[in-house]
Amino acid sequence: MMKLTHKRLATFCSLIAALVPECRLMITKDGLNTLAVDTANVGMVSVRLPATAFEQFTVTDAEVGMDVGKWKGAVTIMEKADTIEIVQDNGKIQFSDGSYTYTHNPLDPTTLRKRPTPPAITLPATVVMNSKDLAEHLKAMGIVADRVRFIAENETLRLEAEGDTDHIRKVIEHKDGSKFPAGKISSLFSLEYLKEIGKAMKDAGDITLHLGDNHPIRFDFDIEEMEVSYLLAPRIEGD
Amino acid sequence: MMKLTHKRLATFCSLIAALVPECRLMITKDGLNTLAVDTANVGMVSVRLPATAFEQFTVTDAEVGMDVGKWKGAVTIMEKADTIEIVQDNGKIQFSDGSYTYTHNPLDPTTLRKRPTPPAITLPATVVMNSKDLAEHLKAMGIVADRVRFIAENETLRLEAEGDTDHIRKVIEHKDGSKFPAGKISSLFSLEYLKEIGKAMKDAGDITLHLGDNHPIRFDFDIEEMEVSYLLAPRIEGD
Amino acid sequence: MMKLTHKRLATFCSLIAALVPECRLMITKDGLNTLAVDTANVGMVSVRLPATAFEQFTVTDAEVGMDVGKWKGAVTIMEKADTIEIVQDNGKIQFSDGSYTYTHNPLDPTTLRKRPTPPAITLPATVVMNSKDLAEHLKAMGIVADRVRFIAENETLRLEAEGDTDHIRKVIEHKDGSKFPAGKISSLFSLEYLKEIGKAMKDAGDITLHLGDNHPIRFDFDIEEMEVSYLLAPRIEGD
Repeated sequence: MMKLTHKRLATFCSLIAALVPECRLMITKDGLNTLAVDTANVGMVSVRLPATAFEQFTVTDAEVGMDVGKWKGAVTIMEKADTIEIVQDNGKIQFSDGSYTYTHNPLDPTTLRKRPTPPAITLPATVVMNSKDLAEHLKAMGIVADRVRFIAENETLRLEAEGDTDHIRKVIEHKDGSKFPAGKISSLFSLEYLKEIGKAMKDAGDITLHLGDNHPIRFDFDIEEMEVSYLLAPRIEGD
Repeated sequence: MMKLTHKRLATFCSLIAALVPECRLMITKDGLNTLAVDTANVGMVSVRLPATAFEQFTVTDAEVGMDVGKWKGAVTIMEKADTIEIVQDNGKIQFSDGSYTYTHNPLDPTTLRKRPTPPAITLPATVVMNSKDLAEHLKAMGIVADRVRFIAENETLRLEAEGDTDHIRKVIEHKDGSKFPAGKISSLFSLEYLKEIGKAMKDAGDITLHLGDNHPIRFDFDIEEMEVSYLLAPRIEGD
Repeated sequence: MMKLTHKRLATFCSLIAALVPECRLMITKDGLNTLAVDTANVGMVSVRLPATAFEQFTVTDAEVGMDVGKWKGAVTIMEKADTIEIVQDNGKIQFSDGSYTYTHNPLDPTTLRKRPTPPAITLPATVVMNSKDLAEHLKAMGIVADRVRFIAENETLRLEAEGDTDHIRKVIEHKDGSKFPAGKISSLFSLEYLKEIGKAMKDAGDITLHLGDNHPIRFDFDIEEMEVSYLLAPRIEGD
């Protein structure tokens, strides 16, 4: 049996839902974790929810086919609850808050994409910034275009988006712990993905972004005792 | 001339609109009342708004074809008014709040469905419960399915809904005045109807629900000095 | 360089957007101004934003093709800013708030409709009224019909709208400075236009309306230091 706050479970589901509708969820004595890639192979999400983040945590090791929409349904049904209990019940998953009891048959994990191997990449720029600010900037960029370029140059990070006849630029306020390489590096990303990731990270506070030159971008952060990472592949100019 | 609070008129219209878009409205010296069945013969609504619920009430007996949408339009137009006057004017109905004057030709009542005869049924379970809670539970059930089963057993009432791969269950908190038969009885209902009825009853406070075994369900309650009853036919498993 | 409050720029854009998506904007040492007619030749908007309404105003005389949507985009992007700077930059327009920099190529003004010549008309009724009230009344009229008649008679102005089977009437509360001709005059207008104009004027406070008999209607008012006028052609009964 796992018992955790409603808010933590809701955050767990939203972090995953930002990228994939279903994934393989590992349940072990250390906690819950998932590592999943979206259908288009553009984004990867990793979430670790440790056993210590639960009020109670007594589980049977399992690989569960997580239907993220169903988990979010349980969260919505129990929106007034402070804590939620999750029980593994003969292959079924049962959620309850002392008022509602919601049971569902998880997906067959063997029908889902395999757990990917994270690519071994080195990203030279490291930028620490506020997640709420980033979510706002990404929204602003979306008014002009559907892609945004992240550019590290002169010890600063800036975002740029190009519309048909217009252009927007924003220099990011970075924080202690940021590290910039010499010269200029930049990568272009889809705002469709970034806006979802931005919303999911919004309440994290400080996040660490890792940028390369025409390389993927990675966002690392902690939220609600979870260790989270998003990796997003770059778009090529003229795609 | 009838004069009543805006809130009372708005509630009167919403109670009827939850089930039918038009009905035969009886105007007598005792007040307003209607008894109407929806097109699919699934639900019946009865509302009595007594003369004593009005600030002024001097009427000519009439059967009026009530176009519920038009009445709601008048309520919306006069949304800032405290009280509304309704005047019968040569077959027309005139609403005014001292600022707007809204006049409309009622429907011809002979073109509308006849006043039904309420079926003579005995429903063994009587459950008193809070109407806002019920509205919330019905909304939660709707996340999983489009039907819900009401089950009375062991001196409690519970709701159950079945989705394709999931299931939700909720035991209702009942109040004094509830009466349960021996054994188990249950009936299945359409959430499409129930969610509308739930919203319409939401502010009633305590309501009394009458349940049978594969029988209709009835909700009786008072709100804004009105005496209201909804009757809903059961669905058959496998419909 | 022009520097003005975010609110003033937002209002300037909304006033124009209520009627046209693009227009010829005149930039002179006296300020900004535009006079534009919508595609259907039904409405005309005139806005003058004087140099004195800016915190800084040093400009090069120009006629600029204003893409109202792009200007509103800049306003949205900089929604948290107190003031916005606008720079004419080699034919481009650059907006910045110290955080975002948004640049766009204006439209070629010679591809836009020419500045119209306001018609020489005399409108005998002058009515001073509250703009927020008018916006509400127009919304109420829209519940019944898509046109509204403005009628001046007996030293009052009233609005009337006819639906298929219903009718709504509202006597306007006019203020000092109103002037009514003898007899009755009235004109019919499209609510599609009037509701947009009503929303745009909503925060103006007192506005002055000029009405004739089957003639255009004109609304004159000041808002955020701007001098604004809308002129709307009448509809003919049976159109």
